[in-house]
Amino acid sequence: MRNILIKISYDGSYFHGWQIQENAHTVQEEFQSALYKIIGEKADIKACSRTDSGVHANVFCISVKTESKITPERLKGALNHFFPLYMACLSAEEVPLDFHARYSCKGKEYVYLIHNREVRDPFLKGRALHFYHKIDVEKLNKAASYYIGTHDFTSFCTQDLRKMEDMRRTVFDAKVTREGDMVKFTVSADGFLYNMVRIMVGTLIRVQEGKLKPEDIPQILEKKDRAFAGPTAPPEGLYLNKVFY
Amino acid sequence: MRNILIKISYDGSYFHGWQIQENAHTVQEEFQSALYKIIGEKADIKACSRTDSGVHANVFCISVKTESKITPERLKGALNHFFPLYMACLSAEEVPLDFHARYSCKGKEYVYLIHNREVRDPFLKGRALHFYHKIDVEKLNKAASYYIGTHDFTSFCTQDLRKMEDMRRTVFDAKVTREGDMVKFTVSADGFLYNMVRIMVGTLIRVQEGKLKPEDIPQILEKKDRAFAGPTAPPEGLYLNKVFY
Repeated sequence: MRNILIKISYDGSYFHGWQIQENAHTVQEEFQSALYKIIGEKADIKACSRTDSGVHANVFCISVKTESKITPERLKGALNHFFPLYMACLSAEEVPLDFHARYSCKGKEYVYLIHNREVRDPFLKGRALHFYHKIDVEKLNKAASYYIGTHDFTSFCTQDLRKMEDMRRTVFDAKVTREGDMVKFTVSADGFLYNMVRIMVGTLIRVQEGKLKPEDIPQILEKKDRAFAGPTAPPEGLYLNKVFY
Repeated sequence: MRNILIKISYDGSYFHGWQIQENAHTVQEEFQSALYKIIGEKADIKACSRTDSGVHANVFCISVKTESKITPERLKGALNHFFPLYMACLSAEEVPLDFHARYSCKGKEYVYLIHNREVRDPFLKGRALHFYHKIDVEKLNKAASYYIGTHDFTSFCTQDLRKMEDMRRTVFDAKVTREGDMVKFTVSADGFLYNMVRIMVGTLIRVQEGKLKPEDIPQILEKKDRAFAGPTAPPEGLYLNKVFY
């Protein structure tokens, strides 16, 4: 038995997220289908996270336990052969047997892209949120800085049945920067709750609109109530950017 | 009667080129359909060129003669409202009545993108040619320099029924540059023959492969025979980038 860590990248606009579902095209389905063609065996696969429909991955990690003797380099080439063109295998490497793409993960970095100019860019359809009014990057960066640290992020989590879980997460860094017309929110943490980055972005947009002040963020965190944060920003601007092990 | 110059941009992977065809989705069809919804009249429209299926436009120019009294700024906003998200109106301005998007054009600039790294980028599907082997930019730039000047470009034109036309064109500039993994061929000329840029790129690829030398380009031009140039590069890397008036 060997354990292989596979890093892939994909354009999320083609997928209904990672996890296999009936009647929906998912990353897991494409991945398993390609893998089966190569190693002829239904391998035990573990993914670093589930991504939602429309969310992109600059990098996404999967660990595969297999009896196959294929070299990681050949596996990478074969996956790229069978994957659709909107998906790619970036690397494959052998890792210890106790490595688990999800449980061994020490943190992740997400990026959210906001294209900030008057006219939309046709080449960014499905790849960034288009925002018409000029964004005050300095103000939003100030707001983002309040996300840093260990907090209960209940206010930044879409309610689901996982209410029993620990809602505390440690945000290592959170910043808003601009490159030309593109405003980028970059956030890294030891873990993320459901829709956490998208609600962080929706809250930053409320700050941009003047409906919230940067200094309101600590109180929103303290409320532990989803109703006090901004809306959930659309998925198309969100990219899983780094996975830390 | 007024004449309005409209600049648009579109992701060519969604279209079968500019010109209206039966049973194919074209830019002209989307443009005319949006315009009709706004001005309620079948206006006389002239385009700067026909682009082929899969070819992109960072900018594409259309002149519209209309009786409508709509301001250019409102027309721009309305077009963006009715256009699909993979298409945008960049600007609209009133121009003299004798202005013609095609005949008034003094030249154009095209860019061809080659993504040059081992693994493809899923976000560049349909947007760049993927080339695995490391490209020698200096050598290709040398080859491209031979395109500059006034030449008969018969060798760089897909044969069609337009054989009567003058095959001489003046290339103002032609260069190959690299930004990270992206190799870019930029060429400007007073006009382009059918498939001219794509055959120029196919020929540069033959130079990269060592099947041609940069110094062979002048002889290929002199042959005035399509058979001596390289293949026609695929449309997905090609962008109409500038239109000069």
